[in-house]
Amino acid sequence: MNECLIAEFPLHEGKTVTIKGWVANRRSSGKVSFLILRDGSGICQAIVERETFAGPYEEIKKLPLESSVIASGRVVAESRSPGGFELHVDGLDIVQKSEEFPIGKKEHGPDFLLNNRHLWLRSPRQIAIMRVRDALVRHVREFFHTNNFTLIDTPIFTTTVGEDSSNLFSLDYFDLGKTYLSQTGQLYLEAAIFGLGKVFCLGPTFRAERSKTRRHLTEFWMVEGEMAFFEHKDNLELQENFVTYIVQNTIREMADELTKLERDIEPLKKVAPPFYRVSYDEALEILHKEGSDIQWGSDLGGDDETIITNLFDKPVFIENYPKKVKAFYMKQHPERPECVLCADLLAPEGYGEIIGGSQREDNYDVLLKSIHDQKLDPERYGWYLDLRKYGSVPHSGFGLGIERTLSWICGLKHVRETIPFPRMLYRAYP
Amino acid sequence: MNECLIAEFPLHEGKTVTIKGWVANRRSSGKVSFLILRDGSGICQAIVERETFAGPYEEIKKLPLESSVIASGRVVAESRSPGGFELHVDGLDIVQKSEEFPIGKKEHGPDFLLNNRHLWLRSPRQIAIMRVRDALVRHVREFFHTNNFTLIDTPIFTTTVGEDSSNLFSLDYFDLGKTYLSQTGQLYLEAAIFGLGKVFCLGPTFRAERSKTRRHLTEFWMVEGEMAFFEHKDNLELQENFVTYIVQNTIREMADELTKLERDIEPLKKVAPPFYRVSYDEALEILHKEGSDIQWGSDLGGDDETIITNLFDKPVFIENYPKKVKAFYMKQHPERPECVLCADLLAPEGYGEIIGGSQREDNYDVLLKSIHDQKLDPERYGWYLDLRKYGSVPHSGFGLGIERTLSWICGLKHVRETIPFPRMLYRAYP
Repeated sequence: MNECLIAEFPLHEGKTVTIKGWVANRRSSGKVSFLILRDGSGICQAIVERETFAGPYEEIKKLPLESSVIASGRVVAESRSPGGFELHVDGLDIVQKSEEFPIGKKEHGPDFLLNNRHLWLRSPRQIAIMRVRDALVRHVREFFHTNNFTLIDTPIFTTTVGEDSSNLFSLDYFDLGKTYLSQTGQLYLEAAIFGLGKVFCLGPTFRAERSKTRRHLTEFWMVEGEMAFFEHKDNLELQENFVTYIVQNTIREMADELTKLERDIEPLKKVAPPFYRVSYDEALEILHKEGSDIQWGSDLGGDDETIITNLFDKPVFIENYPKKVKAFYMKQHPERPECVLCADLLAPEGYGEIIGGSQREDNYDVLLKSIHDQKLDPERYGWYLDLRKYGSVPHSGFGLGIERTLSWICGLKHVRETIPFPRMLYRAYP
Repeated sequence: MNECLIAEFPLHEGKTVTIKGWVANRRSSGKVSFLILRDGSGICQAIVERETFAGPYEEIKKLPLESSVIASGRVVAESRSPGGFELHVDGLDIVQKSEEFPIGKKEHGPDFLLNNRHLWLRSPRQIAIMRVRDALVRHVREFFHTNNFTLIDTPIFTTTVGEDSSNLFSLDYFDLGKTYLSQTGQLYLEAAIFGLGKVFCLGPTFRAERSKTRRHLTEFWMVEGEMAFFEHKDNLELQENFVTYIVQNTIREMADELTKLERDIEPLKKVAPPFYRVSYDEALEILHKEGSDIQWGSDLGGDDETIITNLFDKPVFIENYPKKVKAFYMKQHPERPECVLCADLLAPEGYGEIIGGSQREDNYDVLLKSIHDQKLDPERYGWYLDLRKYGSVPHSGFGLGIERTLSWICGLKHVRETIPFPRMLYRAYP
């Protein structure tokens, strides 16, 4: 038995092989059954002819979709077939005859699909998205590795608030009282730069937001980089190179999958340094021209981001937000103390924020004042303040949301399809 | 200013460069100061001579450890120096003069060091361990990628119990009631094999165990693989190849770091297939001979594992445990229904369990009975049971603990040093 994967068919042309998989589709006549088989590596058309097939043809003809099978036959080149090859079947064992599969060709609503996420993951679109996710995460890690960053897996249980205290999940931690689930690994990464210079983390983060938008997940994966002796300008340049690297490598490697997703990759091919740089003040001017009445000192909302990104053909940095709408750790702007040295990076085509980054406040007294101003408990930040006592240095970093970035690369309308098991306001099952 | 990293000194011999880092050590005479500088890429000795130094020599001479500096000078080959080069300094700017660093040369207790984990991470041993961790995780991912696995990031918020319901962290999830923090991604990986064949996840997992041993963390990282059309025997072979790959690649790449950690790598070089295979029943015989009174039907404890692994010079699989000490999803042994098709992999040199794996129960009725027998709520496992209705296949998988594996590779006494910010029974700070 010459077992092989469907993806390996080009190596086995003309030979007899055995494959193991599932019946993804089927059509039959009295004489011939065409089965589309899927084995995780690819799909192929398997042809079973009544005349030549040794087994029970009538059973194969009616085989329910998603049944598991082991099929043997000859690999034949056929350019009209998906993948370019067919399997001329001479033996087919049924591993399990499937019950009627609940997901069919008809349109299903999102709730039905999400309730059946464990089965929906078998759909060609979902398989393609998962493959692109795999490639994206791989290229993200590769970028950091080739640029001399060291991985630092930051903790999930935390006693500090990294972002917004109103969005924390909390839980009882043995006898120690409440801990929170991490919103960011950044504060911990900052501790690690003193020994390792450049570090990154990539893990799940949590936001207990009662938001129900196409951009929000309760649990999402974020990659964060933190660099010693790195200023705001250096930070933006690194981000340009990083985003360019992950986009270009992912679309090159995943061209077939993106075609399946009907993603026009021309706009993605344009992603190259330099990206546009727009100050917060300029962004407000743009929004006012477009009819918005947003006031100075407000954060940009999802709709504001959509308006701005639709005006640019490449990613756009929005720099130097008002201090009061940003996290306590951002470095005060040297000439405008009401602003901070930060930038959000907005993806084009209406996708909006994919990165938040900033230079960090490295002055002990200014940082302590920010902690007080934002009504955080300085006790809990003792260790973080220490980093400004023992050889403080200018440093910067950023965090990129994997799901939002994937949503943009794949051209999806909603982030819920970018993660295997999405967690949202009303969803923690399956 | 020709800025470079210390690791790049070989490319700059004889030239004048600028480096940015911290004073890791210092000794001075009236005429010469020797500073050990650290920049995250490496360390070097920097020599400042009073006669030729343009700046304030007396200040440099007394510079507190961990002060941040920018130093310029000529790179000179010097085989007796750490890294093989010295920097003959002509300019040195102090970025921040450090306060007195709390971690010195004297021995500190583990509590003191853990309370100062954010500073302890600057120690040469801790830096070396973090680099080995980075390499280990990279090789783990590379193995899965080169073997055609697709990454599936499984959820942290879960409504199912993957392992042991007594060790769950639970929390309130909006209006949906209690959810748990994931103990394993396995159940979700099983759903993904139907579309992707071979999948893996690598993320944090949580166990609310009141255990205080050298092998336990509350929050630890686990890599898990799951394979369709894969039986117990295939599973063990894959694990042998996997562990061999990650150990051999990590010790080859990290030879310098392991030397710094005084790890004798000869025992690790022996790690190659096949590993030893010992049945649970045989393991009990061994333990009885060694004086243990363990009864059939008990799980092996940490001390039992230590005894067994000290008898073997390579990793050992303990196969076919009693059903009642293992999780509900393991496949019943075809000839011995009181046992399951599983194996734990124990690392040698007393390190004990690093992998738990099994073939999964693929029969709907047997699985449902297990869920009832273990007093789990079948409602919550509806989606998981579905996987046995729609094209069920033989499948297997395993999970490897990153920290325990790293502890073994680095030759550490306690897992607390293997993760940047350890979380344990009495510790969630810093």
